[in-house]
Order: sequence, then C-alpha cells, then structure tokens
Amino acid sequence: MIGNHTWSIPEGYIPEESTGPVPEMTSHETVCVLNTNDQEATIELTLYFTDRDPVGPYELTVPAERTRHFRFNDLDGPEAVPKGEDFASVLESDVPVVCQHTRLDSRQAENALLTTIAHPGE
Amino acid sequence: MIGNHTWSIPEGYIPEESTGPVPEMTSHETVCVLNTNDQEATIELTLYFTDRDPVGPYELTVPAERTRHFRFNDLDGPEAVPKGEDFASVLESDVPVVCQHTRLDSRQAENALLTTIAHPGE
Amino acid sequence: MIGNHTWSIPEGYIPEESTGPVPEMTSHETVCVLNTNDQEATIELTLYFTDRDPVGPYELTVPAERTRHFRFNDLDGPEAVPKGEDFASVLESDVPVVCQHTRLDSRQAENALLTTIAHPGE
Amino acid sequence: MIGNHTWSIPEGYIPEESTGPVPEMTSHETVCVLNTNDQEATIELTLYFTDRDPVGPYELTVPAERTRHFRFNDLDGPEAVPKGEDFASVLESDVPVVCQHTRLDSRQAENALLTTIAHPGE
Repeated sequence: MIGNHTWSIPEGYIPEESTGPVPEMTSHETVCVLNTNDQEATIELTLYFTDRDPVGPYELTVPAERTRHFRFNDLDGPEAVPKGEDFASVLESDVPVVCQHTRLDSRQAENALLTTIAHPGE
Repeated sequence: MIGNHTWSIPEGYIPEESTGPVPEMTSHETVCVLNTNDQEATIELTLYFTDRDPVGPYELTVPAERTRHFRFNDLDGPEAVPKGEDFASVLESDVPVVCQHTRLDSRQAENALLTTIAHPGE
Repeated sequence: MIGNHTWSIPEGYIPEESTGPVPEMTSHETVCVLNTNDQEATIELTLYFTDRDPVGPYELTVPAERTRHFRFNDLDGPEAVPKGEDFASVLESDVPVVCQHTRLDSRQAENALLTTIAHPGE
Repeated sequence: MIGNHTWSIPEGYIPEESTGPVPEMTSHETVCVLNTNDQEATIELTLYFTDRDPVGPYELTVPAERTRHFRFNDLDGPEAVPKGEDFASVLESDVPVVCQHTRLDSRQAENALLTTIAHPGE
C-alpha cells in the first residue's frame, strides 16, 4: 500500500498568459496522481480560494496501476478553475495514492517550472 | 484535521531587482497557507537572519476554509522584510494548517520559479 | 540507517526537444539515489503510465557509500522510456536509500529546473 | 524543538559556467540551515560521489536563533567541492535543525531555480 488518502497543495495559480505551442507549452498547473493499487482510485478534489467558499468536489479517477497528470486548466465539474487567481487544493482518495504538484509557467518566452510532492494529510 | 501547527522554511531571499509588470511579475517570496478548518487560523510568523536577532511575530490570519498566499515583500508589522538578504521563517498557527514556499525570481527577463512544501514541525 | 526502502515519484515527463550542448543541457528526467550503507543497493524501478500496464522492473545498483543520478533518458532494460509521454515511477531498494527527483527542461533556449525529494513509501 | 539531527540531499551539482554579476548570479548549490535553538548548532557535512569514497566531514556552525545559507561552492575543509560532478550530501547536527536545498543555475542568460526541503533522516 503506497501512499495516503489525503493530500494538500496550498499553492495554486494558473498564469493567464502563455507562450509557445498548445497544449505542450501552455501555462498550466498540474497534480500528478499515482495509483499503484489493483483497483481504481476515486478522488474528490476541493478547491479553496482567498475570499469565497470552497468549490467541489471535482471527481477524478485513476485506473488501477496507472498515473494521471491532471491539469487544473482542464477540470470541469462544478466550475472551471479561474486563471490569474490564487487557490489551494485538497484531494481525498478512497485508496492510497501519491500526489505531486507541478507548474509550467510560459508567460515569458522561456518557460519556468516548479514541483513538490504534495503534503500527505491525515 | 489537515496539517500541522508549526512549519519551517529555511530558505528565504527576496531578489532586489524585478523585470516585468507590477505586481504580477515582481520578484517575490511567498508562503501559501491553507486553512481547511471551520475556524479562522491565527499565525505568528518569525523571521531568522544570518547575523542578527529574530524579528517577529508578524501576525497573519487565514479565515476558515480559505487559502492566503502571503508575499514576504508585503509584510509589515515589526519591520519590512529586507531585500537581497538571507532569511528563514517559522510559522506557528493556533489551528492545523498546511504551508508551501514559492519564489518568483524576475531579476532577468525570463522568470524562474521554485517551490516546496514547508517542513512540518513539532 | 538513512532512508527508506520504497520511494514514489508521480511526476515524470521527458521533453522531446532540447537546446544546447549534449549531454549536459539535454532535457532530462533524473532520479538521484543516495546509498549511505556499507553494502550495495539493488533497486527495482517500475514505471507507470496513463493508459497501459506498468513496465519493469528496471534494475539499478548503487555501490556502498555512493550516489548515482540516473537519467530516465538512459535507462534500458525492459524498454526505453518514451519521450513526450506522462509517466510515474516507484523504486524499491533492498537497503534504505534516499531519492530525489530532478528535471532539466531545455526545450527553449533558457533551461528550466524542478526538484523534490521523492515520497518515502511504506 | 524544531527539526531533526540528520538530513540528506541526494541531488548535488554545481554547474561549471555562470552568467551575470558575481556572486549574486553565480551558479551555486546551497543548503539553507535554520537553527531555532538557544544554542549553536555544530554540523558535520559529508559528501558522497559516484565513483570515489565520501569526503568529509566539513564542519559548519549556525549560531543560536540564526539561519545560514551555505554555498557548496564556498566550502573549504577537506577539499573544494568539484564543479560539473554529481554528488550528494548528508548533514548531522548536534541539535535539531531544518535544512533546505536550493540551486541557482545561470549557465544561460536567464537563470533557473530549484528547491526542496531536504530529507529528514533517522
């Protein structure tokens, strides 16, 4: 059993601008989820904002023994994730998974990257 | 209950120069705080330096079920955070929160980014 | 005994393009393994994908009291790691080791970097 | 008591080239150490390499309630840290500290950054 049921990512921000070919170099915010179990993971993602109530859950699924790199840009469900606005996220999975947060920022001609393993919660 | 009461960030440095539109592309050092509780979080932030006594506490608040991405650049309270000087920080919250450290460095024409989940302390 | 037997990295992606001198500035995805033990570490690495079965194990060895920074680009054994495709990885070592994930992305003229300590598993 | 006695950083690499003003934009590899104790921290740092024996200890000190951001570039002691060569490091402190790893890579005109909290060891 690899991973945890709850993961948190306090940082979240989708830059409004992008430079370069779509979708590869589009500015994006991603949560990479690894499910090593022999059963599908069903994940409820909730978004937190600066000055309004949380939005969610967004329901995500990762098949058994698969990884999915979800772009926040592409989430639908309760509502699209706003660009240019601070947010944070919490993921709750029915089976243990591992989550990593990555951003590609291509507002300028040369892209910048950041990543971190998310915070495993209780 | 998601998170911890104490978080540490040994790295801290606000570049003195910036390139690009203000405030979006201003070089900045940020701590993102996520409060999933149903009550406000009151956080005392203390800054540590290379060769002088710690400064603080800076008092930060994050409402219930909200995230706040605090730029060290914008902190007031005991004193402004100096630019171009190494520092570190410790956050102590009255309720469990999750903290992530991010920097945007725009000293040059193309920005660079870094991030990490802070270190959850005792 | 420093480290863990199992490590996970949900993010994985080798950019298809590179700019600059080979191999130093070739876009690459790396797992850095530190073995502080007085015996060699034998590591089985398994890759997970979005829509096909896991591939592995790739067998890696790190001599006693050495570090090895393995580029996914250079792995052979069951099959080469595809470029431009999302993946994730799990490492299982017979002795405790510490793992860190790094990418250099040189698709554009100026390189971007990301890193994180991998997630220590059960 | 904030932190741990042992910290590991599997990734280590000082780029051979730099662009921009010295020392601010010199390519560097840094370990940031935060000592919140009321006594000085004495730290023994050991470097691990790909194909030769570990080198160390390098002795570092961080005064009580201070942070020090040590550039590997500037370490003396047993021997200078080689540029352009993979290494890893372990820090052992007599009092609990927190360690974070940062690199600034200025091989190209626009700098790149990476960071992560180091791995807290036993």
